[in-house]
Amino acid sequence: MSGSQTRGRRPAGSGTKEAIEAAARRRFAEVGYPRTTMRAIAADAGVDPRLITHFFGSKQELFVAVVELPFEPEPTFEALLADRGEGEVDVGARLAEFIVGMLDREETRTTVTGIIRAAASEEEAALQIRDMIAARMLTPLARHVGGDDPELRASLLASQVVGLTFVRHVVGIPALQDAGRERLVGFLGQVFNVYLQNSPTGA
Amino acid sequence: MSGSQTRGRRPAGSGTKEAIEAAARRRFAEVGYPRTTMRAIAADAGVDPRLITHFFGSKQELFVAVVELPFEPEPTFEALLADRGEGEVDVGARLAEFIVGMLDREETRTTVTGIIRAAASEEEAALQIRDMIAARMLTPLARHVGGDDPELRASLLASQVVGLTFVRHVVGIPALQDAGRERLVGFLGQVFNVYLQNSPTGA
Repeated sequence: MSGSQTRGRRPAGSGTKEAIEAAARRRFAEVGYPRTTMRAIAADAGVDPRLITHFFGSKQELFVAVVELPFEPEPTFEALLADRGEGEVDVGARLAEFIVGMLDREETRTTVTGIIRAAASEEEAALQIRDMIAARMLTPLARHVGGDDPELRASLLASQVVGLTFVRHVVGIPALQDAGRERLVGFLGQVFNVYLQNSPTGA
Repeated sequence: MSGSQTRGRRPAGSGTKEAIEAAARRRFAEVGYPRTTMRAIAADAGVDPRLITHFFGSKQELFVAVVELPFEPEPTFEALLADRGEGEVDVGARLAEFIVGMLDREETRTTVTGIIRAAASEEEAALQIRDMIAARMLTPLARHVGGDDPELRASLLASQVVGLTFVRHVVGIPALQDAGRERLVGFLGQVFNVYLQNSPTGA
């Protein structure tokens, strides 16, 4: 993993790294990034805390190593954003269906809210998490958004997804939690189409 | 402030409460809600920590007492959302101008990011902050949004504002930070109009 392989004590067994990863995933999901400590993860995994440093380095390196994106960005965006300009496929609606579906499944929703909370923490460490998310999610999205100013369009689109997740699932506003799926997809699909295909002025 | 007026020791002077409020505002803005302690605020204000409990109660009660909304919701929404249906005023663009202007001023931007970070913290206390924000911001917004399902429209609109603030100023994505104001207002204005006046299906 790093040059520290030769330092520190040897791992207790071949399952040690996996045990740390599993304990870290559980902790990050349950109490969030800021309140997760290396010591607690070590205790959960039944290992010496120095083993975590040995395998992963810092807490934010561990987070970046174990966080699972809710989907594989590259093939997902390619599939969702294909067939545009044909006038037959409502790409915004298709993307909205996908996003709302992802947020309706507990496992993927927890992943997304966990990443958002980690990025919102005031720790310096969070900077690296933000970079990771930007590189892994926004860069491939911009590539498939295309058109003029694809980075701006991709970032605005992502901002609506982040805001929806935040207000609906972190804050928990009832009007958004109780909204019918069809209604939600209807509004969001139109908004995604603004970012995907309208000119900045709407003209 | 509460029934605790008769308990604890007397305030040192008439400026004590104001000194605590000023220290609390500064702390919350600088290190954020989760890492702000009553002890640190007391030290900054030069008072006994018990005086804070005496005047304000818990940490989240203190936050709710000192947090200043970035604008007065009721008159602001009334002014921004008036003259709709006339076909002459682009209400979405006017609202987008207002939001982007608010985020371009450091003082109001810091207030908004501070509230978002407090709401994102995993503390139980944050629940009350969320309720406060929902009641103070979303209820008046829904009243002025009107039409069918105003609560859903208001919440979706708010979710785009929260997401924009989060991705642009908490995460700090360059494409959004560097975007020309006109371009940003152009896209956001169209999106706000979707939430303010389109049917859920866009038909």
